[in-house]
Parts: sequence; structure tokens; C-alpha cells
Amino acid sequence: MEEKLNSSIKNTWKAKVITIFPEMFPGTLAHSLAGKALKKGLWSLDIINLRDFSSDERKTVDGSPAGGGAGLVLRADVIDKAVMSHKRTTDNDRKDWPVVALSPRGQSFNQKMAASFSRCKGLTLICGRYEGFDERVLNFHKIPEISIGDYIISGGEIAAQVLIDSTVRLIPQVIGNQNSLSEESFTTDLLEYPHYTSPRMWRNMPIPEELLSGHHEKIKQWRVQKSEEITRDRRPDLWDKYQKTK
Amino acid sequence: MEEKLNSSIKNTWKAKVITIFPEMFPGTLAHSLAGKALKKGLWSLDIINLRDFSSDERKTVDGSPAGGGAGLVLRADVIDKAVMSHKRTTDNDRKDWPVVALSPRGQSFNQKMAASFSRCKGLTLICGRYEGFDERVLNFHKIPEISIGDYIISGGEIAAQVLIDSTVRLIPQVIGNQNSLSEESFTTDLLEYPHYTSPRMWRNMPIPEELLSGHHEKIKQWRVQKSEEITRDRRPDLWDKYQKTK
Repeated sequence: MEEKLNSSIKNTWKAKVITIFPEMFPGTLAHSLAGKALKKGLWSLDIINLRDFSSDERKTVDGSPAGGGAGLVLRADVIDKAVMSHKRTTDNDRKDWPVVALSPRGQSFNQKMAASFSRCKGLTLICGRYEGFDERVLNFHKIPEISIGDYIISGGEIAAQVLIDSTVRLIPQVIGNQNSLSEESFTTDLLEYPHYTSPRMWRNMPIPEELLSGHHEKIKQWRVQKSEEITRDRRPDLWDKYQKTK
Repeated sequence: MEEKLNSSIKNTWKAKVITIFPEMFPGTLAHSLAGKALKKGLWSLDIINLRDFSSDERKTVDGSPAGGGAGLVLRADVIDKAVMSHKRTTDNDRKDWPVVALSPRGQSFNQKMAASFSRCKGLTLICGRYEGFDERVLNFHKIPEISIGDYIISGGEIAAQVLIDSTVRLIPQVIGNQNSLSEESFTTDLLEYPHYTSPRMWRNMPIPEELLSGHHEKIKQWRVQKSEEITRDRRPDLWDKYQKTK
């Protein structure tokens, strides 16, 4: 019985995070949906302190950028040691266990990536800081950079939490009602239609009568139409993509 | 003296967050750059529990979506009360104090928005949950929805932390070396060039000789060229934009 339990625990999705701010974790991931699933053992989180892989007494992990400029760059040798050490406890097939670095220079994270990560055994995330990573270690280990959006945050730690939260909610059993997942934004390339709930009349604004008709086909039509309007209005880029695939 | 201190505190940038998960804050914002600045009083954080504005004993804040479907929708009347109550303690001019709702249906958050928020007196963020907000309250108060990226996370709380972190680091005095800000990704529509630091040779890979030349113009050229290559390769959408404005 105990063996069976252990093997099932071994099969849960695992996140490993390499960071110089271990105290930022679990952070937001201790709460809400991801937090509940973490307590239930539906996924696990392993935080690796990058400073443990520094080779000097002052625990240095960074240096000045070659060629000059502001900020500091995370050293190739230190990142390399952290990545090599974690390899012993992960699957070495990158298809089953991707290793990614969080950086504004990366490809844009999206719902499709979240879905693909959720089907893996686990994921290793390296949090960028300062001016980012020495390029050589990313090239050597073929580590892709991923960005959560077109803005700069102070480090990859919040980005790692975004990415993990987004992935964990797609793991089977984490969300009770799987139907919630199929109608949300980005699953269909359209933004979600507007929602309403009681009261039926609020500040002289009624809930649109189409939604109260009880007529399934009418409701569906209204929602698709609103989704299209909102997408066209707010996200012309998504709208173009949708038009092409329609 | 005390009065002077108070008035300077009153002038610091303020974030107000309306949420059903107050325990998720300050979360990541207690650490690193944003955390240090928070302790120094360079900005302040006020967390408002949405449940305090529920009018029933069970502290209900949501209801079933009109027209059917999975999930729950945050009620217009409850959000309204939370927004109205906070108005007394904020600037009512939305140009000085924007009020935004976090939702995947929103316009995409970007560096330009972060810069604009950082020039305001403060910002109120309403965290979405479940299937989002009753549309009427967003229309009534003209609250724009903002999305941090094309993926779904379990709630607006992590998104609020992304948005606040990104904004706070642009507040004067938060980052010591302001030069760091001017060369980073998205300020020029290009992704940042690769970085290198010591050791000079790592696993047979040298730091590119252009960067060690000491020749400023050469270094600059190399960096622009690499920025262009990386942007073209990783973000054809940004590259198109850059080509048009060049």
C-alpha cells in the first residue's frame, strides 16, 4: 500500500525553480487553486537556491556585463552547476521535462504552452534577474527563454508563479468542473463573452434578454457574437488570427 | 517636521487591490526590489477584502452566469460597493488614479502602460476570479479590463502582483541606476541583446571578441545587430512593428 502511494506521488507533476530569492516561494502558489492542489499532492514544488552553486565564499552568482553597461549578468558556470545538479532528480528527456529560463527576451508564454507543460512529468524554471543570463549557458544546455508578456518585472520569480499557476490548473483533477476550461479565453482564439449574474436589474441595467430566454441556440449565438465583437475591439491581433483560421 | 514627513508619505505611489484572497498579499511584493521599496515607503499597498462588501451573512460575492454555463460570476452590486467605498480615499480623477480590472479578456498590459501608471498618484486593481465580473459594473464605472498575457491563471491576484511590480520599479528612486531602465527590452521595441560575464572562456566558448574590444562604437553596433536578430527570430510581431517605425 505504501509503495503504491509512493509511486503515485512520484507521478505527480513537479516544478523545480532555480532562484536567488527562495523566500519568494511558494508565495501566491500557497493559496487558492494551486495551493489547494499542492496540499492535496496533485503537484509538487522544489525550490533550488542558485547561491548554493556559487564557488566563492561571498556566494557570488553574477558579474559585470562584458562590453560595459549597467546591471549584472548571472554567471554561466553557476547556472550550469545548478542545472547539472538538478538533472539527477528529473527526467532527462526534455520532451517530458522541459527546462526553461524566464526572461523578457523570450518567446511569449501562451495557453498552448501551458497545456503542453501540463502534459509533461515536470518543468524546471530558471529565474532571471538583473540583466539576465550569460548567453553561453543557455546555448550550451539549449534552454529556451520564455517571457510572460511585453513588460519588465524585477525578476523571473513572479513570472515562474504565473507560469506554474497557469500550468497547474490544467492538470487533471485540479479543477473540479472541466467544462470551465473549454469555454475560456484563448482556447478558441476569441476573448470570452460578457457575463451577468443576479440581480436581474441593477442600476436600471437589465441582464440582456437573450440570456434569459432559456433558448440554448439563441444564447450560444449571442455569446459568439459578443466574443467576436470584444476580440475585434480589444485585440485586433487575435482577431486577425481568428479570421485567418475561421 | 512631522507634517512634512506625512505629506511626503501622502505623495508616494499607492496601490489598492480589491480581492477575495487578501492572504495572497503582499506575497511576492514583500521581497526583492518592490519589497525593499515598500519598506522604504516609496510606495504603499492597501488590500481590500471584497467579501466585506457582501450584503448577506454567508459573505456571497458571486452567482451563476445568466444563460447557463460553468463557473461563477462576481456580482455587480458587491464590486460596486467596494469601488464606491474606496473612492473616498483615492483621487477621483481617473487620469491620476486609474481603476482597472484584471481579466484575460482585457487589453494586453505592456511597458508603456506600466510607465503611465508609474506617473499616476495611485492605481486600484480589481482581481477577477471564476468566470469574471458582471459586465454591468465594468460599464457603469467605465473600468477597463487588463490582461497580463494570452494565458489563463486562476485569478487576478498574481496578475496584480505582476502589474504592481512592473510599475513600482519605474517609480523614481526605486532602481538605483536609472541607466538600467533605458536599455532593456521593450523600451526600444527590440528584445535585449545577449549578455556575457566572466569567465572569459567557459566550456570552450569565449565571450565574443567585439565585446572585449573596448571600442564603444563597435560594441554598440554588435549589440544592435544581435537585438535585431533575436527580435526577428523570436518575436516576428515585434519585428514587424519595429520595421514600420524605423
